[in-house]
This record gives sequence, structure tokens and C-alpha cells, in this order.
Amino acid sequence: MIEHTVQVRVRYSETDQMAYVYYGNYASYFEVARVEAFRHIGFSYKEMEAAGIMMPVLEMKTKYIKPAKYDDLLSIKVFIKNKPGIRITFEYEVYNEAHTLLTVAETTLVFVSSSTGRPMLPPATFMSYFEKYY
Amino acid sequence: MIEHTVQVRVRYSETDQMAYVYYGNYASYFEVARVEAFRHIGFSYKEMEAAGIMMPVLEMKTKYIKPAKYDDLLSIKVFIKNKPGIRITFEYEVYNEAHTLLTVAETTLVFVSSSTGRPMLPPATFMSYFEKYY
Amino acid sequence: MIEHTVQVRVRYSETDQMAYVYYGNYASYFEVARVEAFRHIGFSYKEMEAAGIMMPVLEMKTKYIKPAKYDDLLSIKVFIKNKPGIRITFEYEVYNEAHTLLTVAETTLVFVSSSTGRPMLPPATFMSYFEKYY
Amino acid sequence: MIEHTVQVRVRYSETDQMAYVYYGNYASYFEVARVEAFRHIGFSYKEMEAAGIMMPVLEMKTKYIKPAKYDDLLSIKVFIKNKPGIRITFEYEVYNEAHTLLTVAETTLVFVSSSTGRPMLPPATFMSYFEKYY
Repeated sequence: MIEHTVQVRVRYSETDQMAYVYYGNYASYFEVARVEAFRHIGFSYKEMEAAGIMMPVLEMKTKYIKPAKYDDLLSIKVFIKNKPGIRITFEYEVYNEAHTLLTVAETTLVFVSSSTGRPMLPPATFMSYFEKYY
Repeated sequence: MIEHTVQVRVRYSETDQMAYVYYGNYASYFEVARVEAFRHIGFSYKEMEAAGIMMPVLEMKTKYIKPAKYDDLLSIKVFIKNKPGIRITFEYEVYNEAHTLLTVAETTLVFVSSSTGRPMLPPATFMSYFEKYY
Repeated sequence: MIEHTVQVRVRYSETDQMAYVYYGNYASYFEVARVEAFRHIGFSYKEMEAAGIMMPVLEMKTKYIKPAKYDDLLSIKVFIKNKPGIRITFEYEVYNEAHTLLTVAETTLVFVSSSTGRPMLPPATFMSYFEKYY
Repeated sequence: MIEHTVQVRVRYSETDQMAYVYYGNYASYFEVARVEAFRHIGFSYKEMEAAGIMMPVLEMKTKYIKPAKYDDLLSIKVFIKNKPGIRITFEYEVYNEAHTLLTVAETTLVFVSSSTGRPMLPPATFMSYFEKYY
């Protein structure tokens, strides 16, 4: 499988008046983790999108165990446990600097052709980046 | 049960370069729906929080069926199907103006004392607003 | 001149841990005010963009006088004091329910062709909506 | 004076359907630059806020010269040209990887006591971090 960890420092803009990271803002942390996992295996999401394939999110499940706080340096572990097909599933674990597990999540995305708007199998050039991990 | 519908117009800031509403931004639509459902039954989330009870989110599940787009006037239906205890669960359906179902979601929140940080039963004054619906 | 007022209720997502509306979030309030001012005079920003003209922001100046707070029902007054040319300038005043002036701002936007990426004069059909105000 | 540069990679969540970074999102980049400039001189904004001093923004001016795009690795130069008093002014320049200047901005913030809500001179312990730069 593919496993990768990224670090994200919590911005003031991401907090709310409860002094927690607002629950909707984790989605952008997960997006950063996905894109950096792709970059880690040699693959650019930006270039794929420029080539006419985009990856909208189909489903997200998040459990908020403990709050992330302002200025926390979060470690976001991302796992792609199964080889991508038309869909690709990412799992996430968010830790703070004390190694406390704050959040777990899962997202499923789909490969879509920008021109037709229809789901599609990712092209062979994309899949080649994934071959050795499965 | 409690059922309420709110309308939210999609802002340009909420779109992404796919020309979809960014998947993380639905969380704020759901928050608006929750707060307005509370206001609808006579209850102010703001006042409850000022009185020392806050409601962090424990869990969110979202299915993205079709994209919401810029300037769409969304109808967000929110349901509280079970009487709240320490936890309260909200279900959501997001429709566009053509009555197409775009998104379904569920969030579970917990009542927490601001002073102790611990989960607590909502006070009787809060519960009284809910009595007649269950 | 054109003058219009829109109301926006502050979302929890827009607060920060200072319990103020985060200073960057006013930009989306101003955007809502611009778009609704256009709708008020019979004109759709969405349709103009679909027709190949977009309006990026060139400049923004904001003075934060007093903080907006969670759940405030803000009134945003927007003024287009001069007839648009290649550029269009909007001025804003943000008030809370107690009619306290919270924020004043000014933004200048430019009409740009989506196909060429170059500034352009807005088309006559657009300008016709503005004629009677100047 | 104090000068510092931070790098921020543009997130998908920060783009809009024009495929530009939404104009309101630069505010959070500037915030990151401020906080990291403070950390660079040995000073923690988070700790100052925990000690009862917060720094709301009084004024922001931004000129958008060229758009930042998705996945751009931005360099944000921040300058504190004058020694802070009750107010502190930051200037910013945002560059992309091709060293093109995209945005210039200026923000003025004020030191405020969390308990009284009133402007105050920053404490001597804070000022000591700044002494050697002016």
C-alpha cells in the first residue's frame, strides 16, 4: 500500500470561537495529504487535472476524537490501502505534536473526464506510478 | 421529529477550480442548517454557548451525489430524528433549484461544558424546546 | 449611483478563536454584496461569467473598526459611485443589528476576457443596466 | 528592520472557479507570514495570546497584480519596517516560483488586552525580541 505523512501547521483562520479547528477545515488538510502522497510517488495531481482528468470527492467520513488547536503542528498520515480503479479511497489519521490521535477519516474520490464529466479509468501513465505498491 | 429547511446561496469563495462547491465547504452549510433549525424551535445556539455549553462535532458523514455550483440557491433540509441526549444527530439533504438531490450527510454533536470540557446532559431549559417534537 | 444593502448572518465557520469574524472572511461578504447589487439592477454576474467575461479583484482596502461576532445579522451597504469602465469600484459599509459601523472597505475589479485573459470594456448589454444610475 | 520569508503551497480549497486563489484567501497567507516572522525572532504569538494579549487587524490593503494558481509554491516576504508601538505594521510581497511578483499588501494590527478589550503597549518581554532590529 501507499503510506505518507505530511505536516500542517494550524492557521488562525482555521480556528473557530470554540478555539478548536473548525470541523469543516479538516477537508483541506486531507486534500493536502492526498496531493503530497501523489507527489511522493512521483505523480502530480495538478498535471493530471491539466491533462483533463479531475478527482471530485464522492464520500467523506470523519471522526473527531480530540480537537486540534491553533499553532499545532499536525502530522497527517494518509493511506491508500487498495490499488485505485475508477475510484480511489484514502484513509487519514491526524496527530498533534504529543502524538495524540485527534481525527480519523476516509474519503473516496472518482476519476472524471473534464470534457465528458463522466467517470473513467485512470490512464496507464497514471496507474504506472501505483504498480509497485500493490 | 424536528425538520427544517434553510436556503443558502453558493458564494464564489465556496467554489474551487473544478467549478464545484469545494467538498469541505458543505460543513458550514450544515452548521447554518443546524443553527436555523434551533432558532426555528425557539432556541438560540449563541445563547446556549454564552451560558457555558458548547457543541463540538463528533462525527460527520457526507455523500456527494452531484456538485453544487456557483450562485445555486440551495435548499438544505435538516432532520433531528431522535430526541437529543448527551449527543444529538442531524441528517441533511441538499437540493438545488431544480430539486435535484446533491448531497446527503449526517453529523453527531455532543454537549460539552465550556468550563470543565466534559460531555454533559443538556439542561432542562434546553430540553423543554424539544419536548413537543418527540 | 447604485446603492444596495444585503444581509448576511455570521456563521460559526467565519469566527476565529478571538471570537471575532476572521479578517479575511469579510472578502466573501463583499463579494455577496457585489453580486446582489448586480442582481438588484437586473444583471447576473454568473451569466456574464458564463458568457466569457470574468471580474478578478485588483485592489482591496479594508478598515476594521469594531469586530463582527458570531450570529450577528450584518447589513452590508454597497455603493458603486462611478459608472463602470474597464474597472469598477465598490465601496462597502458593514453594520451590525445595533447599527454600529463595523467595517468600511473598497474594492476595484477589472473586466477580463476569459479567452484572452486581457482587460476589456464591458459589453453594451452589460453597460445598459448601469445607464440610468449615472 | 525585520524581514522574513515563508513558503506556502496553494491548496485546492483556496482556488475559485476562475482558477485563481480567491482574493480573500491571501489574508491567511499574510497571517502565516506574520506568525512565522515572530517565531523567527524567537517569539510565539500563541504564547502571547495565551498570556492575555491579542492582535486584531485594524487595516489591510492589498494589490492583486497577477493571480496565484493551484499548487503554486508561493514565497511570502514580510517586512516590519518600524519598531512596534501600540500598533504594528507588516508589509508583504507574494512571489511564485518564477519569481513573479503576484501581490503586495500591508496590514496594521493593534495590541489589545483580552481582559479589558482595550489597546495596550506590548509588554517589555515582547519588546525585547524587537530591540536589536531597530
